[in-house]
Amino acid sequence: MSFQNPVFIPGPTNIPENLRKACDMPTIDHRSPLFGQILHPARCGVRKVLKSDKAEVFIFPSTGTGGWETALSNTLSAGDRVLAARNGMFSHRWIDMCQRHGLDVEIVETPWGRGLPADRYEEILTADKEHRIKAVLATHNETATGVTSDIAAVRRALDAAGHPAMLFVDGVSSIGSMDFRFDDWGIDVAVTGSQKGFMLSAGLAIVGFSPKALEATETATLPRTFFDVHDMARGYANNAYPYTPAVGLLNGLNISCRMLLDEGLENVFARHHRIAQGVRAAIGAWGLDLCAVDPSVYSDTVSAIRTPEGFDATAIVNHAANTYGVAFGTGLGEVAGKVFRIGHLGSMTDVMMLSGIATAEMCMADLGLDIRLGSGVAAAQDYYRSNPAIAHRDAA
Amino acid sequence: MSFQNPVFIPGPTNIPENLRKACDMPTIDHRSPLFGQILHPARCGVRKVLKSDKAEVFIFPSTGTGGWETALSNTLSAGDRVLAARNGMFSHRWIDMCQRHGLDVEIVETPWGRGLPADRYEEILTADKEHRIKAVLATHNETATGVTSDIAAVRRALDAAGHPAMLFVDGVSSIGSMDFRFDDWGIDVAVTGSQKGFMLSAGLAIVGFSPKALEATETATLPRTFFDVHDMARGYANNAYPYTPAVGLLNGLNISCRMLLDEGLENVFARHHRIAQGVRAAIGAWGLDLCAVDPSVYSDTVSAIRTPEGFDATAIVNHAANTYGVAFGTGLGEVAGKVFRIGHLGSMTDVMMLSGIATAEMCMADLGLDIRLGSGVAAAQDYYRSNPAIAHRDAA
Amino acid sequence: MSFQNPVFIPGPTNIPENLRKACDMPTIDHRSPLFGQILHPARCGVRKVLKSDKAEVFIFPSTGTGGWETALSNTLSAGDRVLAARNGMFSHRWIDMCQRHGLDVEIVETPWGRGLPADRYEEILTADKEHRIKAVLATHNETATGVTSDIAAVRRALDAAGHPAMLFVDGVSSIGSMDFRFDDWGIDVAVTGSQKGFMLSAGLAIVGFSPKALEATETATLPRTFFDVHDMARGYANNAYPYTPAVGLLNGLNISCRMLLDEGLENVFARHHRIAQGVRAAIGAWGLDLCAVDPSVYSDTVSAIRTPEGFDATAIVNHAANTYGVAFGTGLGEVAGKVFRIGHLGSMTDVMMLSGIATAEMCMADLGLDIRLGSGVAAAQDYYRSNPAIAHRDAA
Amino acid sequence: MSFQNPVFIPGPTNIPENLRKACDMPTIDHRSPLFGQILHPARCGVRKVLKSDKAEVFIFPSTGTGGWETALSNTLSAGDRVLAARNGMFSHRWIDMCQRHGLDVEIVETPWGRGLPADRYEEILTADKEHRIKAVLATHNETATGVTSDIAAVRRALDAAGHPAMLFVDGVSSIGSMDFRFDDWGIDVAVTGSQKGFMLSAGLAIVGFSPKALEATETATLPRTFFDVHDMARGYANNAYPYTPAVGLLNGLNISCRMLLDEGLENVFARHHRIAQGVRAAIGAWGLDLCAVDPSVYSDTVSAIRTPEGFDATAIVNHAANTYGVAFGTGLGEVAGKVFRIGHLGSMTDVMMLSGIATAEMCMADLGLDIRLGSGVAAAQDYYRSNPAIAHRDAA
Repeated sequence: MSFQNPVFIPGPTNIPENLRKACDMPTIDHRSPLFGQILHPARCGVRKVLKSDKAEVFIFPSTGTGGWETALSNTLSAGDRVLAARNGMFSHRWIDMCQRHGLDVEIVETPWGRGLPADRYEEILTADKEHRIKAVLATHNETATGVTSDIAAVRRALDAAGHPAMLFVDGVSSIGSMDFRFDDWGIDVAVTGSQKGFMLSAGLAIVGFSPKALEATETATLPRTFFDVHDMARGYANNAYPYTPAVGLLNGLNISCRMLLDEGLENVFARHHRIAQGVRAAIGAWGLDLCAVDPSVYSDTVSAIRTPEGFDATAIVNHAANTYGVAFGTGLGEVAGKVFRIGHLGSMTDVMMLSGIATAEMCMADLGLDIRLGSGVAAAQDYYRSNPAIAHRDAA
Repeated sequence: MSFQNPVFIPGPTNIPENLRKACDMPTIDHRSPLFGQILHPARCGVRKVLKSDKAEVFIFPSTGTGGWETALSNTLSAGDRVLAARNGMFSHRWIDMCQRHGLDVEIVETPWGRGLPADRYEEILTADKEHRIKAVLATHNETATGVTSDIAAVRRALDAAGHPAMLFVDGVSSIGSMDFRFDDWGIDVAVTGSQKGFMLSAGLAIVGFSPKALEATETATLPRTFFDVHDMARGYANNAYPYTPAVGLLNGLNISCRMLLDEGLENVFARHHRIAQGVRAAIGAWGLDLCAVDPSVYSDTVSAIRTPEGFDATAIVNHAANTYGVAFGTGLGEVAGKVFRIGHLGSMTDVMMLSGIATAEMCMADLGLDIRLGSGVAAAQDYYRSNPAIAHRDAA
Repeated sequence: MSFQNPVFIPGPTNIPENLRKACDMPTIDHRSPLFGQILHPARCGVRKVLKSDKAEVFIFPSTGTGGWETALSNTLSAGDRVLAARNGMFSHRWIDMCQRHGLDVEIVETPWGRGLPADRYEEILTADKEHRIKAVLATHNETATGVTSDIAAVRRALDAAGHPAMLFVDGVSSIGSMDFRFDDWGIDVAVTGSQKGFMLSAGLAIVGFSPKALEATETATLPRTFFDVHDMARGYANNAYPYTPAVGLLNGLNISCRMLLDEGLENVFARHHRIAQGVRAAIGAWGLDLCAVDPSVYSDTVSAIRTPEGFDATAIVNHAANTYGVAFGTGLGEVAGKVFRIGHLGSMTDVMMLSGIATAEMCMADLGLDIRLGSGVAAAQDYYRSNPAIAHRDAA
Repeated sequence: MSFQNPVFIPGPTNIPENLRKACDMPTIDHRSPLFGQILHPARCGVRKVLKSDKAEVFIFPSTGTGGWETALSNTLSAGDRVLAARNGMFSHRWIDMCQRHGLDVEIVETPWGRGLPADRYEEILTADKEHRIKAVLATHNETATGVTSDIAAVRRALDAAGHPAMLFVDGVSSIGSMDFRFDDWGIDVAVTGSQKGFMLSAGLAIVGFSPKALEATETATLPRTFFDVHDMARGYANNAYPYTPAVGLLNGLNISCRMLLDEGLENVFARHHRIAQGVRAAIGAWGLDLCAVDPSVYSDTVSAIRTPEGFDATAIVNHAANTYGVAFGTGLGEVAGKVFRIGHLGSMTDVMMLSGIATAEMCMADLGLDIRLGSGVAAAQDYYRSNPAIAHRDAA
């Protein structure tokens, strides 16, 4: 694995130079006012990235998985019922976490490759006259399948059913890369990490709580200390944490938010869409299909590409690593061996992406797939040329 | 607060140049073999720092507090009884966590400034004929009071009582700086973080589990997912994590262990003792007392210094920050306002320490305490001159 | 210009991660023994890269141009005659320097795109019965035209003529990337810089002097102080410089030499040849010609590509910068507007190179040249697949 | 030598964190507009630091010594007469350079420790009726003796004599640290480097030329190519250099100027004076004398401290390095063994300085000098307490 080549995994992303430097900080006193000058703008920046005026943002030295646990353990009690669809590895894992915390999960099995079934959600919620369901779980972007679901539709399902359940959204691989509307979509807890749209190393769980979710913390009895949002809120009120914060990563998060907001969120989303479209053009030129079943659910941060029956897709990932020093993602769970994944999120240029596409092409040809060299590259080039990037940011 | 001056807080420490660089990594694929080349040596290095042949080491993207939660939630069930002494803020917080996780804590109140009461532990354990106590909690070094306790004595208490309870030790501010013997002391879970003896940023919870502690995980029913050691162990077996690891910090931990082991643990401990003795010489010259009641419990990583009755010790910390750009630690909890703390752990030289002592001296004089300028410095100089450092490490 | 994309200029190269870090040093005392531990191994490493046992290596805080001036001013006197061919911008500039220093240059005009005319050198040297020619200048690799000349042939010309003139070789864009044999080729002064084969920033002039060249310094009267090799040699004997050295760059040079020697010089050269062959395959697929007239002079570090009559080659370079954030090299001097240059030296992988080729392809198509998208990429992919790299180095 | 301790050499200085990062740049195309965005603001910033509206600023990849050579070789011809006083090692070396370039130097021998003799200059200039003297050399701050001379007085001497000679000033260890007035003092060439007041690594020669000096370049015949200011000016007009620039250092210089100007030059000078006064208070408390003969010439960037007759001052420097890992400067030339030097320029806080003073104190005591431990520290503390710093800058 060479440090010279970009990575094409669906997170952590390639880290922009100035974020590398923002994170690489000497030690400061994390109880000094200087820390507050990092913490508060970072939290404020995240809130803007969430498109929220009302979310209370908490940032833990942890990962997205810790963010899920924060969501559950602060708002629910053992035995509470939650509704969740399983349509990929990450929704599966969140369900597993619920069960391990003693929650009663009503699972809607959904084919991997499809989006969340808002209509089934509506039926179930409508049927739940006693409002036993306390929370609805929704994975905005299934990183395992490259499927983006319609969270607004899930909100509409809740509204149509007149159901008071909270809406918890895993935005780990969407927030900061794709449109995400905490307030408009009536989200109660949004969860993400530092290593995707924020383009940092892993190490931060980032969550937003609505007033309703905060209210639920008053009665929730699942045990929690490390992930307790009350302790965290008390800390923040004193420019501090209840324990030692990851200061450098927080500084990076602050700068990352500033970068995203300076570029303009809609521009950020458009940039991701453009890069993704080029990848999809290449996939089409190769004659391959996405795991995602139709364009309405194509993800702008990761593409899971189905390889022909009988071919081990994981061989592509191993070959790319061993022969070309390039990292792609393997298939996970149900689609292990059936797909390989190209991550195209974060600070990725068309030029970088073309080298990923060219590498995938070589690997598939090396392994005997009937792929014409240059075909995917040409399709992507054609797309990128015809749809120029808005601007190239200079680093300071 | 200037980045030019060292910090004298009891962690995070000043970060050595090569550890800064080790942590500042470009993104690699955390599912590639390269990651295994970081993870396994890091775990192996930690085990050696713990002086253990048998500890299973787990490293979470979290902090010491998360390490405590890992210890409790993996080995205990709601209602289980634990024995713990409260002799400072950190033992207090661990007890609080136990209670919030539904454990039944038998608390031995102990004056702040004293070490853990091994004799009281022995009495209570001996009296616990039914072995209802499942675990004994021990804070090796109370960062709040600068008190180091005798963990070997706690082990002897358990042995004398013939009691099978597990022994959990918080070594957050001792491991890597002071002698710590996982195997010899019969420790079942040891907890630390990346930001103290390992001289890194905060962001890693580092725990060692004995075979007995691992066995306890089979029956423990406290809910856990993020901190689940089984998931972690399964990940490790595949060169991976159950979620995204903090790769740069792990790389730093690997190099940090190598530095400590190359220097020799006994040399590392002697170096900390030497620096601490200079600080204590200064404190003596000032005519002030430590919070720690007698030399047998003086901490080699942090000194909590009592200021005269009626004087607000916190003013020293604020004045140092505002006027001289230097960070000391405030008193916490019961001793808030009564002590200020000088951290002297990690990669601290006598030369750096003298600037901290000189600064404390100026601050106390500025605030009207009867301190002769240069007096503490002279005492520390005298000690450092008479007790030369073993060698100055060159950075590579 | 984005920091995310690699650069494809013929130096400075993309800097490997560990060299970035080696150069980024805190201040050390440049008169301390620690400095000697950097300086001497760096000089020794350079000598090995030069394939020399006898060269005295001097390193100035300067650039390749300063290296030329070091060569001339230490060994020659005003009015001395030197022999030089002009076959590109860099040989032209060296000749200009000679003239500005009052030397009498016998210039052999040579078409740009051709190598040095060893046969003409031989004729002229043979004719110079009085040995008025004191030095022969030879540009090993003309960065402007992508032409590598046969230095061994120049040596043979000198030998055939029985001429005692010194042989000065500009190896700026060859040393560390292409075979270079200081001793075998009877070189008297070799000149390079830090920013090409050594993969560092610009800032060091690196020269090797043969015993004969050192002897010439005794009688040479051109004025010199900053570039005086005697002052430098006296400094080195005391672990020091006659002025303040560029310590970080020297540290980088030391590590760079270690990297090159650990990889094996022949492997380094083969790696450069492989990358270059892929680029040439692409150029062939585009139906374009190199400035270099035939394969015997094709450079493995830079390709200068002729564009069709009437087309402004510089537009490609500007378009690449403005539209795709990628840097190529423009044509210089006689070939300005007629060629654009792709640098392919230093730490360049096939994967990175493919993105450069893909970008050039898009630019040419955008600007109306008849280039089929993907054609060059496919040709390069085909070459790279069929000629796999030896190994991918892991960074430490 | 530990990387943890500050250095107390008279340059290179301790490098502030943000300048380290500014210099550590990935490769950019040094012929792209982005480079112009670094180059021009850097030159403009230097001009402001010189307090000049009219100086043309040139920046070479070289050092202060190269700056001297730039001054001489661009403006003078072999045989030209220059006037120079020798009052320390650096004025000595500049004189030596003149002689090696064939200039005819009228040397005013001046006791080391004294400032430049403006009155003698005036006599000599007045006596030079034919105006054979083309340039007067003046070392603003003799780094070897810690002596600052009165450049305004030298200008007055020239004016009083009605002499048209150019005034060349070596401001290597003064510019950016002490008041320097290019325009007010009628300076024709000012010379400095990156590694002193600009707080960067060595690697840049920075010179300012007055219109009169630029005019002199038209007729000057000393050979020059690397240091030719015409080539450089032509390069600048095209956003470029005549060769490859040291881009990272230039970026650092740009940021450094911004830091100095944001702080305010007068504040920068006051800060240096304050730190220096503390050092001098310590020296007084030790009962030692400066090499500088009286307060009017005390340098605010470096103090050369005389040790008692018969004592080898260099032993202090070696002992500090070997025993305490701290770097001081040795005596040079005439005062070798008689003085040791403490550098106190650049980004130095009172807190850092106290550790240097404390170390010097220990070293002298260790080596048998009659120095009371803590005495110098106390004197400096007293000064620093009574003269608080204006503000502590936060790093971004």
